[in-house]
Amino acid sequence: MKHYRMSLLASLLAANLFGCQVQSGSSHNAPQATPAPVALLQQQALASDLGYSLVESLTVEVGPRLAGSDKDLVAVEWAESKLKELGFDRVYKEAVQVPAWDRGEAKASIVAPFPQPLVITALGGSVGTPEAGIQAGIVRFDSLAALQAASEAEVAGKIVFIDQKTERHITGKGYGKSVGGRSQGAVEAAKKGAVALVIRSIGTDHDRMPHTGMMHYQDDISRIPAAAMSAPDADLVDAMLARDPHVVLSLKMSPSSQGFATSYNVIAEVTGSSKPEEIVLLGAHLDSWDQGTGAIDDGAGVAIVTAAAKLIQDLPQKPARTVRVVLFAAEEIGLLGGKAYIQAHKQELAKHYMAAESDFGAGKIYRMDVNVAATALDEVKALAAPMANNGVAFGDNGASGGSEVSMLPAQGVPVASLRQDGTDYFDYHHTPNDTLDKIDAAALAQNIAAYAQFAYLMADSRLQLRPILSQDVQE
Amino acid sequence: MKHYRMSLLASLLAANLFGCQVQSGSSHNAPQATPAPVALLQQQALASDLGYSLVESLTVEVGPRLAGSDKDLVAVEWAESKLKELGFDRVYKEAVQVPAWDRGEAKASIVAPFPQPLVITALGGSVGTPEAGIQAGIVRFDSLAALQAASEAEVAGKIVFIDQKTERHITGKGYGKSVGGRSQGAVEAAKKGAVALVIRSIGTDHDRMPHTGMMHYQDDISRIPAAAMSAPDADLVDAMLARDPHVVLSLKMSPSSQGFATSYNVIAEVTGSSKPEEIVLLGAHLDSWDQGTGAIDDGAGVAIVTAAAKLIQDLPQKPARTVRVVLFAAEEIGLLGGKAYIQAHKQELAKHYMAAESDFGAGKIYRMDVNVAATALDEVKALAAPMANNGVAFGDNGASGGSEVSMLPAQGVPVASLRQDGTDYFDYHHTPNDTLDKIDAAALAQNIAAYAQFAYLMADSRLQLRPILSQDVQE
Repeated sequence: MKHYRMSLLASLLAANLFGCQVQSGSSHNAPQATPAPVALLQQQALASDLGYSLVESLTVEVGPRLAGSDKDLVAVEWAESKLKELGFDRVYKEAVQVPAWDRGEAKASIVAPFPQPLVITALGGSVGTPEAGIQAGIVRFDSLAALQAASEAEVAGKIVFIDQKTERHITGKGYGKSVGGRSQGAVEAAKKGAVALVIRSIGTDHDRMPHTGMMHYQDDISRIPAAAMSAPDADLVDAMLARDPHVVLSLKMSPSSQGFATSYNVIAEVTGSSKPEEIVLLGAHLDSWDQGTGAIDDGAGVAIVTAAAKLIQDLPQKPARTVRVVLFAAEEIGLLGGKAYIQAHKQELAKHYMAAESDFGAGKIYRMDVNVAATALDEVKALAAPMANNGVAFGDNGASGGSEVSMLPAQGVPVASLRQDGTDYFDYHHTPNDTLDKIDAAALAQNIAAYAQFAYLMADSRLQLRPILSQDVQE
Repeated sequence: MKHYRMSLLASLLAANLFGCQVQSGSSHNAPQATPAPVALLQQQALASDLGYSLVESLTVEVGPRLAGSDKDLVAVEWAESKLKELGFDRVYKEAVQVPAWDRGEAKASIVAPFPQPLVITALGGSVGTPEAGIQAGIVRFDSLAALQAASEAEVAGKIVFIDQKTERHITGKGYGKSVGGRSQGAVEAAKKGAVALVIRSIGTDHDRMPHTGMMHYQDDISRIPAAAMSAPDADLVDAMLARDPHVVLSLKMSPSSQGFATSYNVIAEVTGSSKPEEIVLLGAHLDSWDQGTGAIDDGAGVAIVTAAAKLIQDLPQKPARTVRVVLFAAEEIGLLGGKAYIQAHKQELAKHYMAAESDFGAGKIYRMDVNVAATALDEVKALAAPMANNGVAFGDNGASGGSEVSMLPAQGVPVASLRQDGTDYFDYHHTPNDTLDKIDAAALAQNIAAYAQFAYLMADSRLQLRPILSQDVQE
């Protein structure tokens, strides 16, 4: 029955009874009729399994693909080959130099007051411990700010333990509040003479698996080993601290820097029909952390933007502008692919009409925010109205664009943020649990529909989106 | 408000307005009034945090306590000291000889067609691989039965992969259906010339952590290494097999036998007021697997039966029979503490009036089954009626008693099974995720109330529960 109705709908759409082209030069708040392809793209996206088959293929045939590793290049080959197979008008790649790092082993245990093994992993980029390991008492802080406020006397010679819980929220905003301890904790701890940093994983789960993620050093500050422990392990340390402030840890970690390697941004294009030099950019990142198979981060995004662009590639009538899919290299280790893209395309950024990135798993999109000229906001809202049919409401002018794309507003490029339900994203993100079974195929298809509609509407829009006000950006 | 009502209830109970002693010599189906202590025990159990504090202490101050390990003896000391501290009438321990085994390391990867690391762990008691590891093609079976039906030609020289999913069910019955592959798979695979066994974890979760558990060898069959992989890893292997039947694995495992060690059953008693030589046995097991902290398996059971017996210890008027808490040694590696108990107490088993064991986490108890003389069933049902007030319905005469206690019906001992909601038990069981945060304190208290009521009713009962019909036992 459902199938019959879908066919009927398709016939009606083919007969163009539902929509007509956007009125030319519309610059006021007049209601705009839905272009026929916008409804068709939704229908096709929801009926297709292309997106799921892409993320399945990437996780099974490539799996973990840490930037700079051998598997990173396998992923690049996979992407280039898939994009060519899908018949995009143009497929190419651009080299990006990336530092290579290997996780090695990480072992930890509580030595006193109650000996127990702990489950930890190195933070990305961490140095190792001496081969014999490090053994020291710990000093606990609620947050990075509390560590910053501490005296050297409290910290010197100790292992700093930043024990901040990450709040669960649909927007994922808890991550932003706690991630400073991961990224800056080692520098702040070393400034005060700490011998190592351990943090409660920046995540919302209660699984005994630690979350990794990038950390940073500072040239003039000594480099100390940095690791995350799982939430149950952090609870265990807390329970011991409640009994005895003298908790002693032993740490042994063997991560290592492996010099530099070449990775690639892999790019595919649907050539615009009348303004091919203007770009609507759909981004995702191809690299992943090494603990899982990179399904939600960011195999999902790769699948979403690729499948969305493929639907546009297959339209009988292409939109005006070029839709460019960029599968960025080395997002996890510092947006390196995004920085290389900006360098390589500097002359072309003025021709970037709009950009958005999918890098938040496969939870359903419920809202789209943008960052466009204030004068264009109402018109963009009207243009995006048909996306409501796919569950995507229009939000406000406070988008960042996400991940690599968040660097584009500073270059004057308008961006959008298609907001996803990230309630459980930080249960799995950067852990061994980032595997295919965490992706819901129906939600993935809804994402693809939204990106396809967004890309089409933007690629065919006659609105003037610039100049953006970069001070409008609020996340 | 709730607190006020509880206080009022306590006053009423103290005034004995709710109940009276069981009518003496009741042997027909006459309704029995609720003894006052039965309601009081429920009230006290639900208001107390003793049970939670016990499992918290065991998981924090001892943690993993694999039978035969150093930590096993720490657990024995912990138990003896806690039971003494709680003021039981008698606390003692009985030696049990146990084999010691160390998990070592376990690494695995898919070598072809798509190289990827896997997350595995050794099954309990497994031998290791040669130091260089094992590399071989895999042959997949849906179940132990399918492996048994296979020809030698299919299996010889291969790594057998038993890929049976465990069904989620409130009773945990899915475990019984799939666990044969874990316990017997290595023998059946080796009979046909396999070089190793890997199984999909016997569990219901989708976490990338493998479940361990005991496996067995047979004297005349060669001993091959046996490991479990996590559910997402098994999915990954399946996805590769769907593309290419020639999937090659590499396995390196270094578990080792460590000879024999002495462990102990730790026992506490509330001496009966008029028939102290007759025993109501409440069992749990003190040992745990080594991957988690042994919270649900079986820290919960240790807490439940200890806290239940403590409530009876503190009653102003003790019941007729002795309530004996037995914290068994070495359950996980083959019910060794239970077997030793039967040997040591052979002469006394005829005086065991009733026994039950808590070894299924801390999910709420919803039903009690028994195994008693058919002639006593209706009377036992009437006696247990007050337990309904705590959510425990009376079931049937098909109880096994669980774990060690399941060996007692063969010795003529009546048993009960207090059935718990085990819907999520096999998400965590035997994994690193068996940690304190998986225990709900309110559900734990409900268990304690049920065991306290059960123990009191049985210790003060005038019913004749023997002879039991061992052929009545159905699980």
